[in-house]
Amino acid sequence: MSRVYKKIELVGTSTESFEDAIKVAVERAAKTLKHLLWFEVKELRGAIRDGKVSEFQVVLQVAFRVEEDVE
Amino acid sequence: MSRVYKKIELVGTSTESFEDAIKVAVERAAKTLKHLLWFEVKELRGAIRDGKVSEFQVVLQVAFRVEEDVE
Amino acid sequence: MSRVYKKIELVGTSTESFEDAIKVAVERAAKTLKHLLWFEVKELRGAIRDGKVSEFQVVLQVAFRVEEDVE
Amino acid sequence: MSRVYKKIELVGTSTESFEDAIKVAVERAAKTLKHLLWFEVKELRGAIRDGKVSEFQVVLQVAFRVEEDVE
Amino acid sequence: MSRVYKKIELVGTSTESFEDAIKVAVERAAKTLKHLLWFEVKELRGAIRDGKVSEFQVVLQVAFRVEEDVE
Amino acid sequence: MSRVYKKIELVGTSTESFEDAIKVAVERAAKTLKHLLWFEVKELRGAIRDGKVSEFQVVLQVAFRVEEDVE
Amino acid sequence: MSRVYKKIELVGTSTESFEDAIKVAVERAAKTLKHLLWFEVKELRGAIRDGKVSEFQVVLQVAFRVEEDVE
Amino acid sequence: MSRVYKKIELVGTSTESFEDAIKVAVERAAKTLKHLLWFEVKELRGAIRDGKVSEFQVVLQVAFRVEEDVE
Amino acid sequence: MSRVYKKIELVGTSTESFEDAIKVAVERAAKTLKHLLWFEVKELRGAIRDGKVSEFQVVLQVAFRVEEDVE
Amino acid sequence: MSRVYKKIELVGTSTESFEDAIKVAVERAAKTLKHLLWFEVKELRGAIRDGKVSEFQVVLQVAFRVEEDVE
Amino acid sequence: MSRVYKKIELVGTSTESFEDAIKVAVERAAKTLKHLLWFEVKELRGAIRDGKVSEFQVVLQVAFRVEEDVE
Amino acid sequence: MSRVYKKIELVGTSTESFEDAIKVAVERAAKTLKHLLWFEVKELRGAIRDGKVSEFQVVLQVAFRVEEDVE
Repeated sequence: MSRVYKKIELVGTSTESFEDAIKVAVERAAKTLKHLLWFEVKELRGAIRDGKVSEFQVVLQVAFRVEEDVE
Repeated sequence: MSRVYKKIELVGTSTESFEDAIKVAVERAAKTLKHLLWFEVKELRGAIRDGKVSEFQVVLQVAFRVEEDVE
Repeated sequence: MSRVYKKIELVGTSTESFEDAIKVAVERAAKTLKHLLWFEVKELRGAIRDGKVSEFQVVLQVAFRVEEDVE
Repeated sequence: MSRVYKKIELVGTSTESFEDAIKVAVERAAKTLKHLLWFEVKELRGAIRDGKVSEFQVVLQVAFRVEEDVE
Repeated sequence: MSRVYKKIELVGTSTESFEDAIKVAVERAAKTLKHLLWFEVKELRGAIRDGKVSEFQVVLQVAFRVEEDVE
Repeated sequence: MSRVYKKIELVGTSTESFEDAIKVAVERAAKTLKHLLWFEVKELRGAIRDGKVSEFQVVLQVAFRVEEDVE
Repeated sequence: MSRVYKKIELVGTSTESFEDAIKVAVERAAKTLKHLLWFEVKELRGAIRDGKVSEFQVVLQVAFRVEEDVE
Repeated sequence: MSRVYKKIELVGTSTESFEDAIKVAVERAAKTLKHLLWFEVKELRGAIRDGKVSEFQVVLQVAFRVEEDVE
Repeated sequence: MSRVYKKIELVGTSTESFEDAIKVAVERAAKTLKHLLWFEVKELRGAIRDGKVSEFQVVLQVAFRVEEDVE
Repeated sequence: MSRVYKKIELVGTSTESFEDAIKVAVERAAKTLKHLLWFEVKELRGAIRDGKVSEFQVVLQVAFRVEEDVE
Repeated sequence: MSRVYKKIELVGTSTESFEDAIKVAVERAAKTLKHLLWFEVKELRGAIRDGKVSEFQVVLQVAFRVEEDVE
Repeated sequence: MSRVYKKIELVGTSTESFEDAIKVAVERAAKTLKHLLWFEVKELRGAIRDGKVSEFQVVLQVAFRVEEDVE
């Protein structure tokens, strides 16, 4: 049977690194979605406060296998 | 705690203006989603009927803060 | 009343053709979504096994009319 | 019978708004072309004179159904 | 003498396949244009009706050699 | 003598419209820069508060003629 | 009265340089079109024969002011 | 041990379909490269002769696992 | 009063990481610019020496609020 | 110590060639900026007068090393 | 004599970070290629297993100086 | 039999012009590759020394017909 995947777009944030911001987003997604398989980074951005980087932000797509229904 | 946002992609329509088409989409989204924070325009298009612009269409992403779960 | 549409991003797969991969994704989406209206292809890819194309993959956006709520 | 459409690229201008610049272009196109169906915005630009915006410019594609011939 | 080519943008449609939609557009163009030489696909899209793909659409540029005049 | 232009990138904001956000940015630029000639829109975005659009934002490049020096 | 412009897409060729290929395309266009105003380069390419560049090719859009009719 | 992949860019051609053009390119690549794993389509184009599509062309990247050396 | 922001484009470098290269650029910018608010990554690159990565480079835009004048 | 570079965006013009338009912009920039290191072409355009190319225009980014301050 | 460089496209992987994935690819390339000079990141992606990021993947171009022959 | 082409990515350099930089790259490629057929320009850049353009650089893809093997 042919497989179907769905991609959703999230923004993860971290004060540490882009990798950490991705992990934050992926792990939050994993709370309600099963079969997460891959992610694709769309944008890297961040916030600055008092002349210093205060937050790393990653816009990413997270893809998962659709079991029964596409919602 | 690190925040996570989700972006969904909508198309708003209006006979008046692009701004109005955006408001239509955002307000419809606000009926079922809380914590809407920003939008990003992806495309501007429209329909023509009888040689006149009959509809302005905006493809936009609407972003909101994910409370508990990413669905 | 102004209409609003939502687009979701799917990946369809097929051993036959890109057209077939699109049909697989659209028909799976139609199981849970009403008012599907159009699709837009974002990417064409595929898998190779033993030196031969083993799967065609299409990343596509599927758009549907939002009835009452945007979820 | 399968339909065919043609897209032409125009630039509309207006001192008022982008929407108005689009209407100017579409209505001029409608003088010589029948079956205009939709437009797609490619670029938004404008002119500045004496420190103020003096003109809004929209680069857009206008699409129409090809009746008998593609010229 | 240096050659000059012109490209026009068409949308072909087919209930069968993207290849067929391209053929439809190219053959219609060939009714009024001579010296068609190549095409370039810009977009792949389609319509959905009753939960099934009802039409494949290809936005393509068709290029031809300009004989005497560029019109 | 050959002319040289410089482009700077600004973000204008308005509660009213994208056109107004552009005017806000252009007029602020005109306070310190002479010979402003054109603008190019790079992005359209906005803020949402309490389920309604609260601000339109335009990322734009503003171009001016360089008189003596490029700074 | 608001002005309207039309852009057409041409490919100019030259054995000498990209600038020359542009001149070839523009001058051919000027044979049948009045009010040509500007061009925009979309692509630079070329042909190779016997291990040497044999032709420079420029894909460009040529814009002109629409007098009475958009055709 | 971390894996490394290499991507090469090919153009496959076919008188039948884009899928067939991809198979032609992949199978030719498989003659000299082992561990081919996936492909990504970059461009769809084609040739026209006598007013008909005479060839489908696919620009694609083919990826393979690097065993010992990257060459 | 409507706010206006300006974006400048910098390249930060670091022997450690992309995050560090961003911090280097942002902190240097903060020496002469007040009200820095956010950054957007445009490109990730780097230098290689003796077969090893010797420098991570990030091309980024840094945005700040324009107080009185846009310069 | 980690280096930081700044990029500014200029438009150079010439009646001769794109290369000449770049030189015009770079040399004007060099009047007030030290440590210019490289340029990147963003756009090639030009003006047409009386059916002939009257000016070549190059939109380019010019990069320089930031000594003490980023302004 | 004018220098020529060649760029190849690789995908590096790491369980640690994007920087590490780049190092993995560059160092593998250095086993068979001399004169590696710079890299450019094209894509950031990754794999997810059991709801956690299991691998960071970087698609990058690695450039080297061509000594005698381009192969 | 269906033909297959391969594209490689090179950077040519010249103190004279972009056209010359392309010739340098193509002629170096021709030393080891047969059946070179076309090139596509991907990027135009250059170096600046002492406030003057010191080198024109062209990133280009060079395509050739694959005889027996794809390597």
